Amino acid sequence: MKSKLYVVGIGPGGKEFMTEQAAQALNESEIIVGYTVYADLVKKYYPDKEFITTPMKREKERCEIALTKAQEGKTVAMVCSGDSGVYGMAGLILELGEKYKEVFVEIVPGITAASSGAAVLGAPLIHDFAVISLSDLLTPWETIEKRLHSGAAADFVICLYNPSSHKRSDYLEKACDIILEHRNSETICGYVKNIGREGQTSEIMTLKELRTRKVDMFTTVYIGNSQTRRIGNSMVTPRGYR
Amino acid sequence: MKSKLYVVGIGPGGKEFMTEQAAQALNESEIIVGYTVYADLVKKYYPDKEFITTPMKREKERCEIALTKAQEGKTVAMVCSGDSGVYGMAGLILELGEKYKEVFVEIVPGITAASSGAAVLGAPLIHDFAVISLSDLLTPWETIEKRLHSGAAADFVICLYNPSSHKRSDYLEKACDIILEHRNSETICGYVKNIGREGQTSEIMTLKELRTRKVDMFTTVYIGNSQTRRIGNSMVTPRGYR
Repeated sequence: MKSKLYVVGIGPGGKEFMTEQAAQALNESEIIVGYTVYADLVKKYYPDKEFITTPMKREKERCEIALTKAQEGKTVAMVCSGDSGVYGMAGLILELGEKYKEVFVEIVPGITAASSGAAVLGAPLIHDFAVISLSDLLTPWETIEKRLHSGAAADFVICLYNPSSHKRSDYLEKACDIILEHRNSETICGYVKNIGREGQTSEIMTLKELRTRKVDMFTTVYIGNSQTRRIGNSMVTPRGYR
Repeated sequence: MKSKLYVVGIGPGGKEFMTEQAAQALNESEIIVGYTVYADLVKKYYPDKEFITTPMKREKERCEIALTKAQEGKTVAMVCSGDSGVYGMAGLILELGEKYKEVFVEIVPGITAASSGAAVLGAPLIHDFAVISLSDLLTPWETIEKRLHSGAAADFVICLYNPSSHKRSDYLEKACDIILEHRNSETICGYVKNIGREGQTSEIMTLKELRTRKVDMFTTVYIGNSQTRRIGNSMVTPRGYR
């Protein structure tokens, strides 16, 4: 019988945001592998499990540890924040997994930040949307720029992951400048920091105002389409163009 | 004290795909309102609740029933399949809710079909992606065409909701023809029917082959980007452009 490696999306972090399927996968696992920050989010719920963590940018090593442990016969869970299939480890595990013939990989989806942050702001993603990461670690900035132009020109709601970091403190401003070539500066935007975690904050503002905001890598940003409105304290995109 | 209306994304339907937060919201509610098909998916888990259902295309009436019941002092849950914030009722409830001052609306996100279907196929959405509905009931077809062109030209992975219906049986073919203007005909694609439900089926194929497939409205379609590959029986998009 093949041994099992679950690639589990845990959502924003709290157990209440996990699906029953994800909780069961972690329960069944003997070893939980993950990036230190995300592993710590679940450690308190599973104190008896063996945890193996690796720091940021050590994704390949992390996946190989998980695959090797599973190959040795252990039931293993690799945890990812949000959805394991959206900027998560599901892809790299499947790529590297080709060499580990005795391991059966099961992808367990979770609530991605686009969805959990949207619920905090109201309903910004009700209609067609594009998800773009501003991190240029693995993607040329030219490709990111092209996607920002295309998404803005075709009136998608745009959801930005990784909008900033120490080395890229002006990336959100650059992204807003590109979008402003296609969209009204009064377009309704919003962001949520630390979704579902301690210190959660959110704000709804115009595109012109968003351009001046300082955000961090734990922030998810939403740029409305031409129909998006502020209703009370909520950011809402209507379902269609009536 | 204000009465509460939860707008709950239940994921694909089975209780194992619901978050604890969603299950708790349904537990707390006295009345569960929804489109007949989705309400039936949860009825078996909550047999003692009062259910109010309305047929398809009666979204406004459905929202008004939920808001009125909450206004009358009941705790109410409006259920949506997938995520209540992605083509769900969260937006319409917030729009109409302005008039119901005594109702406190809480949006409870769920796993949207993009995520749950991706987990079935492997990891198609690991990198930037665009979500487009092919339904032109509320959106002009010209807008949908523009988004297909933009998404394809900027090398987004594209996830299609509502790819077909009785009246729109050739829409997936039309969408593929648009995408084929920008993408190689050998681009890896996939679809999942009845995600997480009885009769779940999936297939991975090329864009040229996808063009000839007959799908229904319970199908979610994935069109890979230029980097997406077939690995074993999985559709995988690498994390970046190395």
